[in-house]
Amino acid sequence: MSELKNDRFLRALLREPVDVTPVWMMRQAGRYLPEYKATRARAGSFMDLCTNPEAACEVTLQPLARFDLDAAILFSDILTIPDAMGLGLYFTEGEGPRFKKPVRTAKEVDALIVPDPEDELAYVMNAVRLIRKELNGRVPLIGFSGSPWTLATYMVEGSSTKEYANVKKMMFDQPDVMHQLLDTTAKSVVSYLNAQIDAGAQAVMIFDTWGGVLTPRDYKTFSLAYMDKIVKGLKRENEGRQVPVVLFTKGGGAWLNQMADTGCDALGVDWTMDLGDARSLVGDKVALQGNMDPSILYASPDRIREEVATILQSYGKGNGHVFNLGHGIHQHVNPDRAKAFIDAVHELSAEYHT
Amino acid sequence: MSELKNDRFLRALLREPVDVTPVWMMRQAGRYLPEYKATRARAGSFMDLCTNPEAACEVTLQPLARFDLDAAILFSDILTIPDAMGLGLYFTEGEGPRFKKPVRTAKEVDALIVPDPEDELAYVMNAVRLIRKELNGRVPLIGFSGSPWTLATYMVEGSSTKEYANVKKMMFDQPDVMHQLLDTTAKSVVSYLNAQIDAGAQAVMIFDTWGGVLTPRDYKTFSLAYMDKIVKGLKRENEGRQVPVVLFTKGGGAWLNQMADTGCDALGVDWTMDLGDARSLVGDKVALQGNMDPSILYASPDRIREEVATILQSYGKGNGHVFNLGHGIHQHVNPDRAKAFIDAVHELSAEYHT
Repeated sequence: MSELKNDRFLRALLREPVDVTPVWMMRQAGRYLPEYKATRARAGSFMDLCTNPEAACEVTLQPLARFDLDAAILFSDILTIPDAMGLGLYFTEGEGPRFKKPVRTAKEVDALIVPDPEDELAYVMNAVRLIRKELNGRVPLIGFSGSPWTLATYMVEGSSTKEYANVKKMMFDQPDVMHQLLDTTAKSVVSYLNAQIDAGAQAVMIFDTWGGVLTPRDYKTFSLAYMDKIVKGLKRENEGRQVPVVLFTKGGGAWLNQMADTGCDALGVDWTMDLGDARSLVGDKVALQGNMDPSILYASPDRIREEVATILQSYGKGNGHVFNLGHGIHQHVNPDRAKAFIDAVHELSAEYHT
Repeated sequence: MSELKNDRFLRALLREPVDVTPVWMMRQAGRYLPEYKATRARAGSFMDLCTNPEAACEVTLQPLARFDLDAAILFSDILTIPDAMGLGLYFTEGEGPRFKKPVRTAKEVDALIVPDPEDELAYVMNAVRLIRKELNGRVPLIGFSGSPWTLATYMVEGSSTKEYANVKKMMFDQPDVMHQLLDTTAKSVVSYLNAQIDAGAQAVMIFDTWGGVLTPRDYKTFSLAYMDKIVKGLKRENEGRQVPVVLFTKGGGAWLNQMADTGCDALGVDWTMDLGDARSLVGDKVALQGNMDPSILYASPDRIREEVATILQSYGKGNGHVFNLGHGIHQHVNPDRAKAFIDAVHELSAEYHT
């Protein structure tokens, strides 16, 4: 493997000194980029794009050609694991992901098997290997997975949901069945992420998109407990370097301390909390990644710059901050505004690292 | 006006002693009730139902015929004010509310006029008067409004939104225009709620459904500041009794203390926070209303009862708790489960009021 030329991102996740604050954007390879839309149109469906390593590599690298980003993130979907379990993932225009065979009964949960990452999910590992080769050490590559609870919501509901009627019904009325589902899913995530690390992912992130729809009691039992198992099951070193682990529960600001206690290296923070308050909460246990409101990218470049300055000041001096949006970049953002954001982070953050 | 036979709800909002914890449900008059669907089918569109005082009265009273509820809430919509301003409210199946004429420019904001509650909104006041008459003192009647920020999101976007692109663009790039919009809206809410109080509403609640999509800084400036103006502008006494004011920001758990400082009487709390933690935060400044996950009504009656017990224990002994769901009741809930919930609150709460 070629030597890593820019390791700011990995250093910041481990709370080591950096020259400027590293920055990347959730969903940085995506629909707001015209070149992404062109590749997608050529590749076919969204899943055709995900399962084609060359196309996935191409779109992963696209934002790096435009912006001075400090990390690349594997282009894939959070629902590849349940798809590999045979649930039949597909996407409908404007309605998001769906499964042909949702999992609703104890028998259906029993039948689930941990997928072999180098078999059913080989397309992901091949994409990781190809991206690492093409990156040629420019910036580190992030691998990722959905959290067990987040995967379970889609697996049980079979689609996006506002009410979580089925998955919560299972959680409330058949907690043992739900725990079995989460256990199989957590084992799958461990195996999947370790395979991504073996294939070349230099940091991994777990997206708990729906942990925030739970009570604090249920979050601890049905989401955090399984992310904890994953953190403890992951390979934390590869190629002679630490492989940092980032946990992100959207809407989980109140639970940062408990999340930090899993032993992960960093936490994603959404924009509903001041980053300085988040830092006070977790102390020097973990690094923090965030936390600009993605909607600010609809504002003027000057206003974006002002917001970057506010967030840098809120975090304050010292190590352990990776700048990011608090959620994925929106599809109607002008790419020039993303550039204004990324450049502002590098320009304005130097003074916090003297 | 006939004497109030059950004043538990009003007493609890003012942190006065009660025999058992009062309970009501957000959206208790709604689609989960077959009798509601029958009235709605007869009345026509959703707006036909809202603007017909007899039909609105009928559906307001329907849940009281089934359940031992401690309050009635006016059947109406949070978007009546912008509709009365001439924006043209209508509803599309499955996509929620829409406005024919969204407000996007400084000129359009300039043109907005505070509606006369006894003119453009007379149908609401007539419904309040009729409901009070028909309630005949059985339980108190709650009036309500959307918060200025929440109204503004719909007024600027013209529909429901996930990204808040237009309303946040206005907030970030034209804060003066946004402040003018919020100011006109806040004045309208004060006038609207005071008219509801004059017409017979015995408590009022302000629904800040979308305050939780803001950063703490923007929440304070663009949502809380205007709820504060409203609280200070409301008539707080009528018919020789205090008229309690409840504020509810969904996802606003971290901001309860700031909300309490407005001088309101009570705060709504969603289910993402332990109620005991919320109580520790606000001390004896305000009463709390909440906070059961509405999805638990999909579970078995035993499990529902268990959750009620957990929440009662979390709040603990003493005054100042109104039991409610943390959000509106879902449309696919079996009404029998709602009954199990309401009965459990009364049965299990007596020991907390000795």
